[in-house]
Amino acid sequence: MKRIAILGSTGSIGQSALAVVDAYPDRLQVVGLAAGENADLLAAQLARYRPRIAAMASGAALDRLKQNGAPGVVVAATGREGLAAVASHPDADLVLCASSGTDGLEAVLAAIEHGKTVALANKEVLVVAGGIVMEAARRRGVAILPVDSEHNAIHQCLHARPAAELKRIILTASGGPFRGRSASELEHASPEAALKHPTWRMGRKITIDSATLMNKGLEVIEAHWLFGARADQIDVVIHPQSVVHSMIELVDGSIIAQLGATDMRLPIQYAFSYPERWPAALPSLDLTRAGALTFDAPDTDAFPCLRLAYRALDAERSLPVVLNAANEVAVARFLEGRLGFTSIALVIERTMDAHVPAEVATLAEVRSVDAWARDYALEAARGVELKV
Amino acid sequence: MKRIAILGSTGSIGQSALAVVDAYPDRLQVVGLAAGENADLLAAQLARYRPRIAAMASGAALDRLKQNGAPGVVVAATGREGLAAVASHPDADLVLCASSGTDGLEAVLAAIEHGKTVALANKEVLVVAGGIVMEAARRRGVAILPVDSEHNAIHQCLHARPAAELKRIILTASGGPFRGRSASELEHASPEAALKHPTWRMGRKITIDSATLMNKGLEVIEAHWLFGARADQIDVVIHPQSVVHSMIELVDGSIIAQLGATDMRLPIQYAFSYPERWPAALPSLDLTRAGALTFDAPDTDAFPCLRLAYRALDAERSLPVVLNAANEVAVARFLEGRLGFTSIALVIERTMDAHVPAEVATLAEVRSVDAWARDYALEAARGVELKV
Repeated sequence: MKRIAILGSTGSIGQSALAVVDAYPDRLQVVGLAAGENADLLAAQLARYRPRIAAMASGAALDRLKQNGAPGVVVAATGREGLAAVASHPDADLVLCASSGTDGLEAVLAAIEHGKTVALANKEVLVVAGGIVMEAARRRGVAILPVDSEHNAIHQCLHARPAAELKRIILTASGGPFRGRSASELEHASPEAALKHPTWRMGRKITIDSATLMNKGLEVIEAHWLFGARADQIDVVIHPQSVVHSMIELVDGSIIAQLGATDMRLPIQYAFSYPERWPAALPSLDLTRAGALTFDAPDTDAFPCLRLAYRALDAERSLPVVLNAANEVAVARFLEGRLGFTSIALVIERTMDAHVPAEVATLAEVRSVDAWARDYALEAARGVELKV
Repeated sequence: MKRIAILGSTGSIGQSALAVVDAYPDRLQVVGLAAGENADLLAAQLARYRPRIAAMASGAALDRLKQNGAPGVVVAATGREGLAAVASHPDADLVLCASSGTDGLEAVLAAIEHGKTVALANKEVLVVAGGIVMEAARRRGVAILPVDSEHNAIHQCLHARPAAELKRIILTASGGPFRGRSASELEHASPEAALKHPTWRMGRKITIDSATLMNKGLEVIEAHWLFGARADQIDVVIHPQSVVHSMIELVDGSIIAQLGATDMRLPIQYAFSYPERWPAALPSLDLTRAGALTFDAPDTDAFPCLRLAYRALDAERSLPVVLNAANEVAVARFLEGRLGFTSIALVIERTMDAHVPAEVATLAEVRSVDAWARDYALEAARGVELKV
């Protein structure tokens, strides 16, 4: 029986993770749940899974949860402390981090310090603090298992191969809803259009990141930390069918790819079952019905966010923090209808240009750079704001 | 330094193997070479690689070789004894079996008995004597490394995974030059047209086998023996681009695929370097230039040989011997212009129908069934012979 704590249990990944738990009731047990603001759904999850501990992001959400009642469940503190309390609960063997943004940073480090396996569905944690997190995991001998379908695919492809055999990582990208459009065509793209992802159903922020290709940029940085690959060893190809989840090229030119249905339950299950592999109740991928598979180079003129991510990875360690913070601000503004689609990259680039790169060796330093970047990006966004 | 003996050194695979040796002069050394009838080429190879031992198929070929001179090289006996002498030479660490048909059977068993790693580029050996060969290898603790691009791909995909994780093997087939044609369109297909393989350059016999899909059928049987998969766990998909060399599906529905250039030096090098992997001097596969990749179900009405191979695998152990022998006879007749293309399957099926399946536990029993099937197939071929 593997005992699981889920950070972000009411989100898209969290709900898929609970569906995996439902499929293996004799192998998986939920011992901790943490959510953001959705008190009603968390209350229902507590009633069903009866974890030892629960947490919510805010006091207001916690109050609503308490009104719903959660008998027998210890309700922890709110915010980052609450996430960390759930992540370090003594009964948890594995912590799935699917909380949004950088909220889960302290929680992931707490899980590592307490010797728990970390299944990471949140890419921001590695983007802003990859060096800190991976070093802590190495010191404590803890495995970081990627849940992102791309990194999960690479983990499966690498499977016990020596690092020296790896020549290149090839991340696939669906290209999002705006694949094939030019920069000028994208100037007036609406949030509604950007939210229509062709192959994956995900949360709002990550869906916009897919439309700008920033999601792939963040994944490039994540791959760097997870697999120890340099920026020039990580390529991105546009693969609209999302059938090949990612690939590796080995030193002899052989390419190993992982393919599967576009269903997040599969990578979550793999992370939960690892190092075992459990028979899935889900239908197999039938390649004879998948249609033609295509692979194209990305257009970084129309989608400059990908280029910005490589620039951040190539530069000093604080620039990815700036990239991520500015992106979060710009995407939020875009979703509010206050920023144009192409201005997202503009805001990020201006914030990066204004930043003096520095070492970030502690979470406090990360938080400090993050705060500066958010303030700067907000100003930059105001400068190019749409007339509402 | 790995010391290599090559059975079939003047053939297509043998020449590619020597090109791999040329690329790694400090890691590979040729200690034995055996060829069929091409004495001129073998003489040139002996002069260049200076192996300890050499052999040829016939006395006439051996005489021509001796006229060419081969100073310092022990020239072994001819025929199967010659192959076995090269395969069991005390200086060889690894024996590449790329001789044609079932000629190499005794040699492969001799190599195993002498504790040598076997790199198998010849599928007939496993088709007719898979049980005998794999049991001998298991007993002696010898690795059988597949060189066929498909099985080599599966070997790479399985890479250290437990057998219980394997759900399904998916062999890819280019479909050959007649892909998409109907049975009636194929009735008057000429040897010339059948020899025009769209993606791979190979010998004549195997190229015809690719046109009938018998090559894929033999590979299904080979996969059964190499990877312990049942017939219902082995699927074939038509993939005309030959970019994906084969795939495995794991129990959780995840598919692992191996992709690469269509160059036999790659799987040969992998078998030579295994368990290591050496940087290749060959260019990488660029997926953004590969075009669309497609996967379709095979048409076993137009290509009944594939169906016959499954039938042979499903049946008692002697039926694959009959399938293989009848196919060799029918293909030879077709190449001579004395048999129609669609009659190849007809001759094989009639021979299989006439056979009473029996156990084949020794090479003598294999040879006996093989001889009966060749005689019967020759008669059957005469019955449907073309007017020349």
